[in-house]
Amino acid sequence: MARIVMKFGGTSVANIERIRAVSAFVRREIDAGHGVAVVVSAMAGETNRLIGLCADAGPPAPTLDARYIEHDTVVAAGEQISSGLLALVMQNLGYRARSWQGWQIPLKTSINHGEARISEISDSAIGEAMDGGEIAIVSGFQGIAPTGRISTLGRGGSDTSAVALAAAIGAARCDIYTDVDGVYTTDPRLSKQARRIAKISYEEMLEMASVGAKVLQTRSVEIAMAYKTPIRVLSSFDPPDAPGPGTTICDEDDIVEQNIVTAVTPDFNEASVTVLAVPDEPGRAARIFTRLAEAAINIDMIVQSASREHGFANISFTTKEDYLERALEVLNSDKEAIGFSSLQSDRNVTKVSVIGLGMKTHAGVAGTMFQTLADKGINIQNISTSEIKISVLINSDAAEYAVRALHDAYGLGSPAKPADENA
Amino acid sequence: MARIVMKFGGTSVANIERIRAVSAFVRREIDAGHGVAVVVSAMAGETNRLIGLCADAGPPAPTLDARYIEHDTVVAAGEQISSGLLALVMQNLGYRARSWQGWQIPLKTSINHGEARISEISDSAIGEAMDGGEIAIVSGFQGIAPTGRISTLGRGGSDTSAVALAAAIGAARCDIYTDVDGVYTTDPRLSKQARRIAKISYEEMLEMASVGAKVLQTRSVEIAMAYKTPIRVLSSFDPPDAPGPGTTICDEDDIVEQNIVTAVTPDFNEASVTVLAVPDEPGRAARIFTRLAEAAINIDMIVQSASREHGFANISFTTKEDYLERALEVLNSDKEAIGFSSLQSDRNVTKVSVIGLGMKTHAGVAGTMFQTLADKGINIQNISTSEIKISVLINSDAAEYAVRALHDAYGLGSPAKPADENA
Repeated sequence: MARIVMKFGGTSVANIERIRAVSAFVRREIDAGHGVAVVVSAMAGETNRLIGLCADAGPPAPTLDARYIEHDTVVAAGEQISSGLLALVMQNLGYRARSWQGWQIPLKTSINHGEARISEISDSAIGEAMDGGEIAIVSGFQGIAPTGRISTLGRGGSDTSAVALAAAIGAARCDIYTDVDGVYTTDPRLSKQARRIAKISYEEMLEMASVGAKVLQTRSVEIAMAYKTPIRVLSSFDPPDAPGPGTTICDEDDIVEQNIVTAVTPDFNEASVTVLAVPDEPGRAARIFTRLAEAAINIDMIVQSASREHGFANISFTTKEDYLERALEVLNSDKEAIGFSSLQSDRNVTKVSVIGLGMKTHAGVAGTMFQTLADKGINIQNISTSEIKISVLINSDAAEYAVRALHDAYGLGSPAKPADENA
Repeated sequence: MARIVMKFGGTSVANIERIRAVSAFVRREIDAGHGVAVVVSAMAGETNRLIGLCADAGPPAPTLDARYIEHDTVVAAGEQISSGLLALVMQNLGYRARSWQGWQIPLKTSINHGEARISEISDSAIGEAMDGGEIAIVSGFQGIAPTGRISTLGRGGSDTSAVALAAAIGAARCDIYTDVDGVYTTDPRLSKQARRIAKISYEEMLEMASVGAKVLQTRSVEIAMAYKTPIRVLSSFDPPDAPGPGTTICDEDDIVEQNIVTAVTPDFNEASVTVLAVPDEPGRAARIFTRLAEAAINIDMIVQSASREHGFANISFTTKEDYLERALEVLNSDKEAIGFSSLQSDRNVTKVSVIGLGMKTHAGVAGTMFQTLADKGINIQNISTSEIKISVLINSDAAEYAVRALHDAYGLGSPAKPADENA
């Protein structure tokens, strides 16, 4: 009997009808003889409702602050409700099932309320119950801090709960059921050529998550990679008796035929800032990025170029759109010490990334990217690379066009969709 | 510094505005130098919403059954939300406050899910926090069973939580804030003469609760009586800086001038059943009431009278309207063994009770009751008495009229409402 973990997000448990559909997926695994733990998010809309109530209660306390504890207490109620309801539905179908709250497992976390990190998951009680044939319905997103207070893992934390639980109980795999039927070569809304990927490596998935593909939370992929827990991304809207094959996220060694480029991923949630005419002296750039880090503003794609004025440089970087206002405030408030002349910013930019393990061993990927964009007359504002990713910053107006062109250029489209099942 | 417990029901925490009003009442006690624990119900409507979700999940499991555990898990989320929100509001006002869930205190209960009884409340952690100046915001209604699962105390259980907590931490008093400003001599909707009672004994309050006065849950009064914890019933709709005096529920020794009759209480939620022509042999009545008890149907006001047929008797009793259908089913399914000819039932009956400690020492209370009803031409169907209560069953159509007549007959009305403050 293998232990497996199944995770269902908010839209998959949005109401009792959807919860019943979930129970059919669970039944299928139980009937296949597996020991099953099911991790659930709160019913769609519930987390936002609870966050709204907290917001009404007064100005928001910062996350990672003790004042955020009550926020976590309120918001974690959402998963308590959905886990109890799924357990009830399974019981009414004649199965032995019980809900587990974070503190009951216990799933121990750090004290950083609102964005707590999992420190330890006890597998004794829950593993024993599963081996005894009881379905474990686990509240995702929540845990217990060293103080005995309820903590939460941050947005999308249920993915992390599921993968960490799978690692803790030595599950054969962790199936993430969501509202899409897998990970795609690009956003299907942008290109009809987008194709579901049968297998993708942890590394590639991490790069995709980090550039804004919202299928999985980054931390959940990191944990899966560290513990070599295979993840499958599946649709909870497929028929339970014949679910699609989804996308398997696994070790690169388990992928026989690696693509040079696996996916083209746009990130529209970007903004660029250029700090003009910074004196070209040691410590000026450091000051800029230290100030931004102190304000907890994540930055990306840093480029320094010569200014027209001699002895000065322009420094550009990108950040998430949400951070833009704060980034500009932080820099303006320190204008004198940094010594720049003015700031330019642009929200109308998109980061387009091509990601693929094969880049490690194949040359020419970057060349193809730049040539393709040049052929289409698309100007590149900024470039950054990692071992398996090349990202360019372009004007948002050209983004869809660029994504489709790159998707074609790397041969990712496939008219024969089912053919890749044997990959 | 005295420790006090304040309890607020669902309408008192129905939304953030109401929760802010609650915070003003709490502030008043804190500023008076008290150590304060606040017990809250779920926001009005929330418990019903959660019960509705559970009902959608399938046929209801019986209470007191292990299958009811998930129901408790789901429903207890309501108090988790309201306690967290009140703690947030108090924190935003600059007070140190924290929420306590049943399992965090811990408030230990029996394993009877849905109607669990409190077995033990640890006062160490919560008492220490209160003495340290932190406001304890406690989720009412919920506790933790010996299995480590969340349990609930049944409808109105937050009153019981509050009084039991007050007893456990040695509170000077337990203030129950609700949507009425005290306990009345009768339902003010029935009689304009109804007058707020300044002080009432535990015994009288118990009798009132048992006949359907919904101000306090019966068990909460029992606990207060056992531990001699004074309760005050107050309105959370009064201005926080000048709340009304409410009603104090205390030991009879603390009430200087006892009324002969304190209150006239109607209970409209009654139904009567008459079992016709039961053979007048030992064991027949026992069989009826054993069967009903096995089906968990509470019965009341039993009367046996001779049948027209020689050797047979008619047996009447009352039960709550909700139980009527089940009671009839249970009896019909055992018709042969009981040996009755047929059943009669009547939903259009009301139990009217007069309650007063003074009955112990004063004669004539029953006589006044029967004479008053006779003078008004109201027929009495059934009578039951306790040491400090006389109840009659009458046709519901005459109930309001009867209540007003009895209220007058015992001199409970008072045109000068404020005068009784000095009682």
